[in-house]
Amino acid sequence: MQGASVTAVSDATSAKVHFSRGIPPLEAIPSAEIAELTGSLLSAEASRLFQYAPIGLHAGDAELREQLGAFHAVDPDRIFVTNGSLQALDLLAGHLLKDAPRKKVLAEAPTYDRAVQIFERHGAQVSGIPLRHDGLDLDVLRERLRTEVPAFVYVIPDFQNPAGVTTSEEKRRELVALSAKFGFTILEDIPYRELRFAGTAPTLIGDLADGVEGARVLTIGSLSKVVSPGLRVGYVIAPLGTPKDLAALAESTYLSPAPLLQAVAARAFASGLVRRNIDEVRTLLRPRHDTAVEAVRKALGDAALCVPEGGYYISVHLPVRTTEEKFLAAAGAANIALTRGSAFYPADAAPPSGTVFLRLPFQALSAEEFTEGVTRLAEVAQRAE
Amino acid sequence: MQGASVTAVSDATSAKVHFSRGIPPLEAIPSAEIAELTGSLLSAEASRLFQYAPIGLHAGDAELREQLGAFHAVDPDRIFVTNGSLQALDLLAGHLLKDAPRKKVLAEAPTYDRAVQIFERHGAQVSGIPLRHDGLDLDVLRERLRTEVPAFVYVIPDFQNPAGVTTSEEKRRELVALSAKFGFTILEDIPYRELRFAGTAPTLIGDLADGVEGARVLTIGSLSKVVSPGLRVGYVIAPLGTPKDLAALAESTYLSPAPLLQAVAARAFASGLVRRNIDEVRTLLRPRHDTAVEAVRKALGDAALCVPEGGYYISVHLPVRTTEEKFLAAAGAANIALTRGSAFYPADAAPPSGTVFLRLPFQALSAEEFTEGVTRLAEVAQRAE
Repeated sequence: MQGASVTAVSDATSAKVHFSRGIPPLEAIPSAEIAELTGSLLSAEASRLFQYAPIGLHAGDAELREQLGAFHAVDPDRIFVTNGSLQALDLLAGHLLKDAPRKKVLAEAPTYDRAVQIFERHGAQVSGIPLRHDGLDLDVLRERLRTEVPAFVYVIPDFQNPAGVTTSEEKRRELVALSAKFGFTILEDIPYRELRFAGTAPTLIGDLADGVEGARVLTIGSLSKVVSPGLRVGYVIAPLGTPKDLAALAESTYLSPAPLLQAVAARAFASGLVRRNIDEVRTLLRPRHDTAVEAVRKALGDAALCVPEGGYYISVHLPVRTTEEKFLAAAGAANIALTRGSAFYPADAAPPSGTVFLRLPFQALSAEEFTEGVTRLAEVAQRAE
Repeated sequence: MQGASVTAVSDATSAKVHFSRGIPPLEAIPSAEIAELTGSLLSAEASRLFQYAPIGLHAGDAELREQLGAFHAVDPDRIFVTNGSLQALDLLAGHLLKDAPRKKVLAEAPTYDRAVQIFERHGAQVSGIPLRHDGLDLDVLRERLRTEVPAFVYVIPDFQNPAGVTTSEEKRRELVALSAKFGFTILEDIPYRELRFAGTAPTLIGDLADGVEGARVLTIGSLSKVVSPGLRVGYVIAPLGTPKDLAALAESTYLSPAPLLQAVAARAFASGLVRRNIDEVRTLLRPRHDTAVEAVRKALGDAALCVPEGGYYISVHLPVRTTEEKFLAAAGAANIALTRGSAFYPADAAPPSGTVFLRLPFQALSAEEFTEGVTRLAEVAQRAE
């Protein structure tokens, strides 16, 4: 480590590379257009939008539910709107775990750390199933199901956070079949799904479950990556009837999301802004993705879990001869900001031994920054012992 | 009942009187002014306001915390901003009950029904202490404290929902002394506090606790009744340090409230709109209050719990010779919409025997409507057996 920290001093004079937060770059948020929509809404409907949402509309603004229903080609009555998709996770965890005889939850390992925190806050014991380049390791899942059926299985099947992995069509079908056979719910979280830069999207797990007797899927969507995080609009696509239950729960938690922000979101769909922005974000991020894939390949060899083809993240299991703690310290000294990779693993799971897990968000970095970052990471990995 | 339901048919031809929902009348919400503030904010800062709130600002927008601190004459670091005050109740219930050795909560009987639901969802056993014309019955509270100390006591000390009662200065001081002596927290909910039409406001319980060794008060505020419910801005005034804990909890529940709505709220304070609107709402509601007090006195005698002097509600314990069920049916037949009074009581409490509890919101009714409503109620009470 002595050598690493000495070298770090000179590295530190170069610009810091942020491989940390997964937020949209400002240029991916059409702020001026949203502001304009907001202005025109307010000039017509301010008095409705600054009042409480009407009782009976606590599952969400009617126009927004229509628009989301149309976007996903589902009955608008299946849509439930929340204050951002994290709040959807929180309500669903409460809803699914409240009277569950089993407080067991299975999740991909690695997975979205905040989701695990939320499930645990609701009393769940969260257990990890290894994530492969094409989704959950189903052999491990099947083995687990033989001894214990969870209340639900949480997956992020498209351009997963943190790994960038997309679950294959085949694995999606198998998951649905297992849900039907064993009677657990699948929580499908799809914030990045629309941000596909290449290839063809597999079917939504929720759609695959349609008509499969006994299968139960709840899909969680978000507007944060397709139009604006500041709107704090998330939603759930649920079986008919469930939105009413969720609305009752929301009503005794925060009453309803803000009418204004829901109305703005509805207009963003109705005016075509969401579709247009998705295209623009794809165009914006595609070259960053391509650079990232190439740079990781060149600097880190075959450590990448997958070629993401979309979303915000590429990730690696990087072989190191040291601990994560020391690796992160060395990376920090080399002026690289990283999120602790082990934090993405449920408590009973970990990266393969001899590796550290690194989430490398490419959405907000220029080609130069990203390439410089992984090059430095390769040096740190080589040096750190 | 035969007679009542026959009479009801003719009553039903007159206009329906809504003694049900406690929402602000539209004319109490300065929608056009808020829309203007929103527009001017967006023309300058749209890109910040449609992005995620910066990490580290999850306790709330800095300017809004400054404004709320100034409004209440407390350190802005003591302020924590939420998605409406119901969400504050939810987070505080989670915060206070999570590791509490005792899941007991005491509340006024009657009290705000949604608050009880929230506490129960967090595992609390909520028990009622009778509410008198000047606040909690402290003799009953002291008696209870001898056998069991609750995790917290929930009170709405100003123009209480549903009863209209304001807790006296003396009882506030005694509550603070009991908090210090027995080591429970006081949750003070003050959505109506600023809407005083007459008399002098007693001191905020949170302020009385300042400097009292061992006393612990968390105060919950809301912008819903002073400027706009649609903004969904609530807040907590807490001891220094607590906002950080609450922010961590919020961060793993809904991340943060919407930056735009918080910024609008901050401007509504900074521009003087909130102060101005409070004055206007007082002027608007004062005659409705006076009419209500007079009409209740005339039609229902001395059944009123108190002369509210502010807020939205006057309430009565109305002597009846029938059940609540039958009374509500007869009132419905006479075209009066009421909220079920017993629903405002925690499970172990009830209105005095031989009476029904009626919450009569006056904030949205004209003098004629309110007077007509209580006159009909008096008739229903006389007839119903």
